[in-house]
Amino acid sequence: MQPKSSGIITLTTDFGAADSYVGAMKGVLVTIAPSARIVDISNEIPPQNIERGAWVLAEAAPYFPDGTVHIGVVDPGVGSERRAIAIATERAFFVGPDNGLLASAVKTLGAIVKVVELTNAQFRLPQASSTFHGRDIFAPAAAHLAMGGAINGFGESLSEIVALDLAMPTRRDHEIEGRVVYVDRFGNLITNIFASDVGPSARAIVGTDDLGPIATTYASVAMGQAVAIVGSNGRVEIAVRDGSALARFGDSPVVVVRW
Amino acid sequence: MQPKSSGIITLTTDFGAADSYVGAMKGVLVTIAPSARIVDISNEIPPQNIERGAWVLAEAAPYFPDGTVHIGVVDPGVGSERRAIAIATERAFFVGPDNGLLASAVKTLGAIVKVVELTNAQFRLPQASSTFHGRDIFAPAAAHLAMGGAINGFGESLSEIVALDLAMPTRRDHEIEGRVVYVDRFGNLITNIFASDVGPSARAIVGTDDLGPIATTYASVAMGQAVAIVGSNGRVEIAVRDGSALARFGDSPVVVVRW
Amino acid sequence: MQPKSSGIITLTTDFGAADSYVGAMKGVLVTIAPSARIVDISNEIPPQNIERGAWVLAEAAPYFPDGTVHIGVVDPGVGSERRAIAIATERAFFVGPDNGLLASAVKTLGAIVKVVELTNAQFRLPQASSTFHGRDIFAPAAAHLAMGGAINGFGESLSEIVALDLAMPTRRDHEIEGRVVYVDRFGNLITNIFASDVGPSARAIVGTDDLGPIATTYASVAMGQAVAIVGSNGRVEIAVRDGSALARFGDSPVVVVRW
Repeated sequence: MQPKSSGIITLTTDFGAADSYVGAMKGVLVTIAPSARIVDISNEIPPQNIERGAWVLAEAAPYFPDGTVHIGVVDPGVGSERRAIAIATERAFFVGPDNGLLASAVKTLGAIVKVVELTNAQFRLPQASSTFHGRDIFAPAAAHLAMGGAINGFGESLSEIVALDLAMPTRRDHEIEGRVVYVDRFGNLITNIFASDVGPSARAIVGTDDLGPIATTYASVAMGQAVAIVGSNGRVEIAVRDGSALARFGDSPVVVVRW
Repeated sequence: MQPKSSGIITLTTDFGAADSYVGAMKGVLVTIAPSARIVDISNEIPPQNIERGAWVLAEAAPYFPDGTVHIGVVDPGVGSERRAIAIATERAFFVGPDNGLLASAVKTLGAIVKVVELTNAQFRLPQASSTFHGRDIFAPAAAHLAMGGAINGFGESLSEIVALDLAMPTRRDHEIEGRVVYVDRFGNLITNIFASDVGPSARAIVGTDDLGPIATTYASVAMGQAVAIVGSNGRVEIAVRDGSALARFGDSPVVVVRW
Repeated sequence: MQPKSSGIITLTTDFGAADSYVGAMKGVLVTIAPSARIVDISNEIPPQNIERGAWVLAEAAPYFPDGTVHIGVVDPGVGSERRAIAIATERAFFVGPDNGLLASAVKTLGAIVKVVELTNAQFRLPQASSTFHGRDIFAPAAAHLAMGGAINGFGESLSEIVALDLAMPTRRDHEIEGRVVYVDRFGNLITNIFASDVGPSARAIVGTDDLGPIATTYASVAMGQAVAIVGSNGRVEIAVRDGSALARFGDSPVVVVRW
């Protein structure tokens, strides 16, 4: 059974803030779901960067109430054979292109209950375009879900969704070798190594630099010094205090955690 | 008669997200209209670019419910003789400077019912500044309209509003020659040629490149290839699949559609 | 006594729009305070620029209804000894790091009624991280205040908050010498000289350029010409009509007002 709607709709897109695209989507949302609350997660995903969109959505979605409808639109294949889908998990809804964008976030919010292809014209804008499904297909579907509509009516059931190939770290004896999977605004380098997977008193080596023991706060080193910490999502993260680890190490250093 | 308020207020401004200007406007809006919903269309119009602001507002406004109040502020002439106005059309309200910014959007939402100059001090903030009418004049007027206030009380009626000079395409026998009127975040070049005005089996020529027949999706050509499509607003649009037409053709190529 | 909540929560942060940080904070806010209204003042404070964050918050906060909860997060010392605090003034609430960020805005909204350190684990997310207090400590506290919760329960009272050292202008006979304290998106240079402190018929000198009498609107000079005006916050501001004073004078000219 699909979860009960929280009445909240989130947006994660690569539409940016300068064009009319996000505004048009919000117009459709408030027209169909006048009482829904719309919350931007981010509309500044770099154009067509599905991996980065998937990351941002997966990081933020778990903090929303159960029954929230998450729209994701990073959609280089719009109008092609890629499917437009809606997903109900045990705890949330997702609406967007079936290109891997939604997959990571879906995993954080319970088992998949239902996946449907968005083919029913009744839940699209009339004369849906082939280039702007965010406005014409995804926003109407999300608005209907937020109003308590049934996901079953949108179209045929699908048995699976497209997954995203995520780089996994390499585990060795007393060592994990990982890589940077996200760089944030502060130049922090977030890795695919989970702190819960490393042994006691572990140290981090970034490229050829030994950063010493993994710390708990940016402030545990002197200004301008690099440090490996456990980030707010449980991952090992490389930072430079009051500076940028991106500037120091680039965006793709090898990161080894050893204990 | 003015339309019934939807309780929704939109913002289209060149104030950006880094300064306090949009925040101060929203503070005024929620103070005067506590139950109104505020939706950003865009606050990232390039500074003082009235044409671009007019475009973005006109593209997004038609997707909002009837009775929505649209604030536009791109206002290089603030404090000069340019008038501050409010407009009621059959379907929506507009508030902003009378410099052409609102004109294109107004046309999409029914006939003009009433235009007034915002001179009544009762509907301004006390001690209204001469440099920030967004906060001191436009936000209060919009908030009053959203709460169901009468447009008549704001000031004297005006008989017309300032229009924007829009470049029209040149029509010849079996051919339309147009130009790029908007470049979006993806580098898509949107022209002033409407697909509904061109004949069957039309092809597009951009500068000296024949792009072949007008297609329906970005994905109808190979990666990196240029294509002319019918955009989500019915206009002929030049794109490069998984790339940027702006980078390929610049922002001002001549576009000819021939059939 | 703390003010009655307006049910409005504002955000002023350096988290930017591209990452998941603001989205995660809003998820926490709507989970704990489902009926609260969230308004972004700005999430585009330059990374770790406390002075600029303080300025933006202080400019916008006074325009919100009494009882609004203002969250500020520009927090280079997160996880170190700097305290996490909540403040009730006579007219508003503030939540954030005790690093000077909140101090200027606090002064605009009445006397301080109560300051507490946010130590009570009951009002934090479980397993609060040491690197993302915005999500784990500040958002929960702000949400509780917005729902009418008592500030007393959050932790021990503090007797004072960290102030921000603000550059004061130098007053001489018939002259004030100031400096630029904020540069906005339009390249306007806003000074620390209040128009109410200068004598009649004052003129402004920027570096070696005499700009003549202080004017009331940008439009009082010819295009491309520099002008000193009284800005919308009562300060003397240097602008170039349809241009950028930043480009003309740089970001740190000496500004003298003489009468």
